[in-house]
Amino acid sequence: MSKKLEQPTQTLKTPRGRRPNGNGLSSTTIMDVAREAGVSYATVSRVVNNKEYVKSDTRERVLKAITSLGYVVNQQARSLAGGRSYAVGLLVRDLGSSYMGEIVRGIDESLSAAQYNLMLYTTHRRKIKERIYVNNLIQGMTDGLLLVLPENLEAYLETLDQTNFPYVLIDHQGLDERTPVVITTNWQGGYDATRYLIELGHRRIGFLTGMMDMRSSQDRLSGYQAALRDHGLPADPQLVYEGTYYQPEGYAGAQSLLRLPEPPTAIFASNDVMAFGVMEAVRDAGLRIPSDISVIGFDNIAQASQVAPPLTTVAQPLEQLGREAVRMLLARINNPEQPIARTILPTTLIIRQSCDVPRNV
Amino acid sequence: MSKKLEQPTQTLKTPRGRRPNGNGLSSTTIMDVAREAGVSYATVSRVVNNKEYVKSDTRERVLKAITSLGYVVNQQARSLAGGRSYAVGLLVRDLGSSYMGEIVRGIDESLSAAQYNLMLYTTHRRKIKERIYVNNLIQGMTDGLLLVLPENLEAYLETLDQTNFPYVLIDHQGLDERTPVVITTNWQGGYDATRYLIELGHRRIGFLTGMMDMRSSQDRLSGYQAALRDHGLPADPQLVYEGTYYQPEGYAGAQSLLRLPEPPTAIFASNDVMAFGVMEAVRDAGLRIPSDISVIGFDNIAQASQVAPPLTTVAQPLEQLGREAVRMLLARINNPEQPIARTILPTTLIIRQSCDVPRNV
Repeated sequence: MSKKLEQPTQTLKTPRGRRPNGNGLSSTTIMDVAREAGVSYATVSRVVNNKEYVKSDTRERVLKAITSLGYVVNQQARSLAGGRSYAVGLLVRDLGSSYMGEIVRGIDESLSAAQYNLMLYTTHRRKIKERIYVNNLIQGMTDGLLLVLPENLEAYLETLDQTNFPYVLIDHQGLDERTPVVITTNWQGGYDATRYLIELGHRRIGFLTGMMDMRSSQDRLSGYQAALRDHGLPADPQLVYEGTYYQPEGYAGAQSLLRLPEPPTAIFASNDVMAFGVMEAVRDAGLRIPSDISVIGFDNIAQASQVAPPLTTVAQPLEQLGREAVRMLLARINNPEQPIARTILPTTLIIRQSCDVPRNV
Repeated sequence: MSKKLEQPTQTLKTPRGRRPNGNGLSSTTIMDVAREAGVSYATVSRVVNNKEYVKSDTRERVLKAITSLGYVVNQQARSLAGGRSYAVGLLVRDLGSSYMGEIVRGIDESLSAAQYNLMLYTTHRRKIKERIYVNNLIQGMTDGLLLVLPENLEAYLETLDQTNFPYVLIDHQGLDERTPVVITTNWQGGYDATRYLIELGHRRIGFLTGMMDMRSSQDRLSGYQAALRDHGLPADPQLVYEGTYYQPEGYAGAQSLLRLPEPPTAIFASNDVMAFGVMEAVRDAGLRIPSDISVIGFDNIAQASQVAPPLTTVAQPLEQLGREAVRMLLARINNPEQPIARTILPTTLIIRQSCDVPRNV
């Protein structure tokens, strides 16, 4: 940092110092960035081209200078020089959920910091599209591929592996242990939430599952069952309602659980959206949250802190899933010999105001 | 269509007919598509390159053949031939909302049908990023630009206009009447919802505004006020609560309205998310929806039909906004002389179960 302070005059530091070019936009050059960051031209070039051997604080300083000067990398020149597209493909089912929004935010901030472009493809759950897009993307338009909750892996994963095309799966276990993935501790999240309710004194805990063809749903259920077992509580199958991750199933599931001869004193929904449905049903039954019924969710989407009462839930580090996937992907792009990694990020119980001790304790 | 039926044998019709290529993926050629669709090679090429002079049913047939055969356009060859990138840039604030998800779905389906790629940039509300991205995008990486709710137009709109770079604004009025935009009838939506409540018999109707620096918020409020005026009802300023489009403001706003000496019998929230907060507050006050209080929203996001009771709301054609913007943009890309268009799409009142006649009528 001392080096920067020693800089004599920094004529290009402020926006006023920028020279407008023909089209009225700034024409900051790579030399301006080097001067601002107090490093050599070659160092800026290494950062911009995402090469290794740049100290992390130097890299930080260069990226800061790039942002403050509004420097724009000439992508076409960079592509020609590097034999790369400097674009990454992202394949998702849909974008309408807060879940997907947070993952994409992480992806997109990390790619943007590395001056990579993001090509977006949404499949709307049509498996044929997934295969077509992948076929398209690996033909040189992108340097790598991120897939969030893919549904048709069997159709192309082998091709990706055979051609050594860099990719990372997000929130999906892959076909076997050799697939590069970023996932979260779904089992542990299910366990922690259930243990928390047990420690509050709950003995009958209702559970709403997600779509049971998804591994995340199976793991959350299995964590719930393990926590009951470890605390010597019976696993009453009547307390488990098979849901879908959609809000109306939360409503219907809670209604069904509340009608049991011996209803639960707490309900654990496998995602926040279903927990919102549970909260509605509890209220419509004339009961209060948390004094009559405790409710707990999973995901910690933004809305979870905004409902009344704020929802206690298991946070998935969704943005971090995205950031970590980018880090792994760029490492593979920069070094094809990079060994395959599987990253498992921890879930965290977020205690808000929707759970309390049960009434009759 | 008769031409297609006359085709003798269609050996490539089924997936089994496809020849696998070296990498295990199908290698359907443009000739296969021409044969399947019963058209000439030149016609397929015109459709793929998005040229004019193709009848819409022919275009439809070709696109269908492309999908069913899994044909993949060689994008690099196409770019070299056409001097274009066949990519469109999309600049959004964020992706975490259902609002944005639906607009992007429309954009992305239309671009995909035209075999264009989508480069996504999210600003996370940092104005400097908006300018940097635009500067970047117009340097040949994309053929056009779509901007959803831009916040820093002043910084670059003139440049876009001067360089005749194709762009369309979505859900934003632009700087003046010469800006190409796709917007919806916010004023009419505000008017229609209010009139509906008046016709049910409501005389005191609470209104929660959105962020008042947004034109959409101003227009919705103004539509509400006009409907009251047209029906001879006083505009009581106590009934208008300034909100933010976020759920906790819906809760707080409803609480404040319900505490008035003469509370409203209906509450109109300027978006669905705030309406969800209103529903919570009404319930927490021990009142029922719709028998005690009617609630109405705006947007018709997916969750609106999934809450209990399903929310009556003003639907914005969000997907259509996206589709229409793509149509306008591709028209400009294909013909730079295309006159500037401003498209205004109608909102629609969707009646579900959250409104009823007031108690004392």
